[in-house]
Amino acid sequence: MTPAPLITFEGIDGSGKSTQARRLAEHLQARGLDPVLTREPGGSPGAEEIRALLLTGDPARWSAETEILLFTAARRDHLEKTIEPALAAGRPVVCDRFADSTRIYQGATRGDLRAVVDDLHARIIAREPDLTFVIDMDPAEALTRGLARRSGEDRFEEMGLPFQETLRHGFLALAHDHPERCILIDGNRPEAQVATEIAARAESVLNL
Amino acid sequence: MTPAPLITFEGIDGSGKSTQARRLAEHLQARGLDPVLTREPGGSPGAEEIRALLLTGDPARWSAETEILLFTAARRDHLEKTIEPALAAGRPVVCDRFADSTRIYQGATRGDLRAVVDDLHARIIAREPDLTFVIDMDPAEALTRGLARRSGEDRFEEMGLPFQETLRHGFLALAHDHPERCILIDGNRPEAQVATEIAARAESVLNL
Repeated sequence: MTPAPLITFEGIDGSGKSTQARRLAEHLQARGLDPVLTREPGGSPGAEEIRALLLTGDPARWSAETEILLFTAARRDHLEKTIEPALAAGRPVVCDRFADSTRIYQGATRGDLRAVVDDLHARIIAREPDLTFVIDMDPAEALTRGLARRSGEDRFEEMGLPFQETLRHGFLALAHDHPERCILIDGNRPEAQVATEIAARAESVLNL
Repeated sequence: MTPAPLITFEGIDGSGKSTQARRLAEHLQARGLDPVLTREPGGSPGAEEIRALLLTGDPARWSAETEILLFTAARRDHLEKTIEPALAAGRPVVCDRFADSTRIYQGATRGDLRAVVDDLHARIIAREPDLTFVIDMDPAEALTRGLARRSGEDRFEEMGLPFQETLRHGFLALAHDHPERCILIDGNRPEAQVATEIAARAESVLNL
């Protein structure tokens, strides 16, 4: 399996992304690989500081334009300091959210900024995942899960069910539009069952 | 005098920008106006938090690409929360550094990113000052002044005299290329003399 892959997890809040990312990293470890488990926004010391600016305080403190710049700054730092060095060392990277989240969240709130998002990505990030698991889930159920583990970083979750429905459609469209790298996973099942499917699909796609 | 003007101060570190910006704001106040004195990076609560990320810690902590995004995020927040509301209320804004600083500092370090800087400015900021005072000064003298007031935010000043010489040429070129808004000021003179010239030039240009 060369070169090392960048594997991302996407989906609405509460869909189980973080849990499934961790389980896949554990599975890869058990298979003798040395994966790096990381997340966005954050994933490097600098990006975690930017994350704190983004996800704490008044949800309306940043405009959509400022937010896009901060998310992209955090992603660039994460890419330089964590993702690229790991991949260069032959270590698979498993990441909870990546650029697709920015595209879909901004698309759901300020679709007019999509060209800015895409242009920034092309100029500053210029990297797509090798494999993306899009976890689909009933938003009402996901919202219940999400609110059950409130962390003080729930800006988006606070926006409610209709917003999560809009996001769900965005993630379904992502999976549909990028079959070359996206696998749609039914998250409305027990955690272990979802994890087993993801492990099997990852092994198959990555020729483990 | 309508509408209210955005007046910026540019120049190398230690050239007296902050002092002269304050003195001009005091002069406008004495003339019966209600100016807002501000600075970059920073100038709004959110932008000041981004400033802290940019100017403290290891000078090499951010790449040039990440730095450009953070500076632009701070500028956008400053524009939305401080500059535009003040101008809309008819208050002149006097700002210590603005977009020209980003152009010239990045140009001196990573000229290959100039297109990114310009594109971000056009998409996200889209605002030029009405009047810019470019304070020219002997870099050796300016560096001495700058080091004399070390604040712990001296990332650029730590880069030394040759770098300041490069910046000086950048600021001279700025004044030359934008005569429609830039006034070049000889900063190698006593503070009060410089302030008197700036006040007179501002009154003339702005028809006070």
